Amino acid sequence: MVMELTIIPLASGRSLSGAIADLVKIIEGSGLDYRMTAFGTLIEGTWDQLMGVAKRCHFEAREKSERVLTMIRLDDYGERTGEIEGAVDRVEKKLGREVKK
Amino acid sequence: MVMELTIIPLASGRSLSGAIADLVKIIEGSGLDYRMTAFGTLIEGTWDQLMGVAKRCHFEAREKSERVLTMIRLDDYGERTGEIEGAVDRVEKKLGREVKK
Amino acid sequence: MVMELTIIPLASGRSLSGAIADLVKIIEGSGLDYRMTAFGTLIEGTWDQLMGVAKRCHFEAREKSERVLTMIRLDDYGERTGEIEGAVDRVEKKLGREVKK
Amino acid sequence: MVMELTIIPLASGRSLSGAIADLVKIIEGSGLDYRMTAFGTLIEGTWDQLMGVAKRCHFEAREKSERVLTMIRLDDYGERTGEIEGAVDRVEKKLGREVKK
Repeated sequence: MVMELTIIPLASGRSLSGAIADLVKIIEGSGLDYRMTAFGTLIEGTWDQLMGVAKRCHFEAREKSERVLTMIRLDDYGERTGEIEGAVDRVEKKLGREVKK
Repeated sequence: MVMELTIIPLASGRSLSGAIADLVKIIEGSGLDYRMTAFGTLIEGTWDQLMGVAKRCHFEAREKSERVLTMIRLDDYGERTGEIEGAVDRVEKKLGREVKK
Repeated sequence: MVMELTIIPLASGRSLSGAIADLVKIIEGSGLDYRMTAFGTLIEGTWDQLMGVAKRCHFEAREKSERVLTMIRLDDYGERTGEIEGAVDRVEKKLGREVKK
Repeated sequence: MVMELTIIPLASGRSLSGAIADLVKIIEGSGLDYRMTAFGTLIEGTWDQLMGVAKRCHFEAREKSERVLTMIRLDDYGERTGEIEGAVDRVEKKLGREVKK
């Protein structure tokens, strides 16, 4: 399944990029496939793998900020893998051309 | 911390209420405090308690639907409890009156 | 349709309740039916009514915070109304009893 | 500001890609900069431009599905533009290297 993870340390003010840089290290350390976007990070794995990463990221952010909002969206297609790109590929096949990604 | 949990079994068509009724039983079975709304269920507990409930609900829905979207939002204020109602109470105190809830 | 509106002024630190109190006044001023929860406010209306409220709330928050995250979820059942409570009612009917709400 | 738009036609079953292909045409027709991901589409513009696109996409989906969930997240940094890529660029600068995107 694919998870979209967004972590917002309140009290961090306008700039979130420093806090997010710390989280990227955790995500990369998991060995799972990921893609970063302007709104969060897409990561592919099993429920337990994904929630393990989400938990480490959430509590890393909590160490530096006394209030943290964490948002998780999971799209579970069952056994399929390669879905970070696969979901966009299928739309491109329906359109018969590439989209911006 | 407080979690907002929304589970959407795709392939269930327009009516989600039957699938959600099954999930309410899991949520109530956890013993955690909760409130149901039109958009999901708010539940209060620790990370591990909340993610345990979310996992059971997600895989219950997956048994009946081959694709499930699960959305989780966590608001972590640290040690505070009673926050399902506490968050609204604080807004009412700022306003000096009750809001609709 | 029913909208769930969550507005997060970054730079507001741990306490959001003062900012949210200002938004409640805008929501109540719209005359639309609403319910406040720990994670946002549910409001019922047409697309244009709901987006009018969301826009006024967003820019009210922007006046006081240089970065604002606004989250909107819309559940559009077509012509049905009374859905802020109706969605929970249907689950209760399936269960044959009341839930906590 | 940057919007993340996710439209879920319930009743569409497991495959969403056909419905999403129709929405891509609307998004591209707007002339706004966008990026498609596995969880939605990021689009940059003003509030009115973005909400115009969201409305056209929502009602296009409603023509084919009697119940539609639309999710919108807006990140409003004020006058900054180029933020679909800019938000990730800043994280890369903090890290001193590229991330997967």
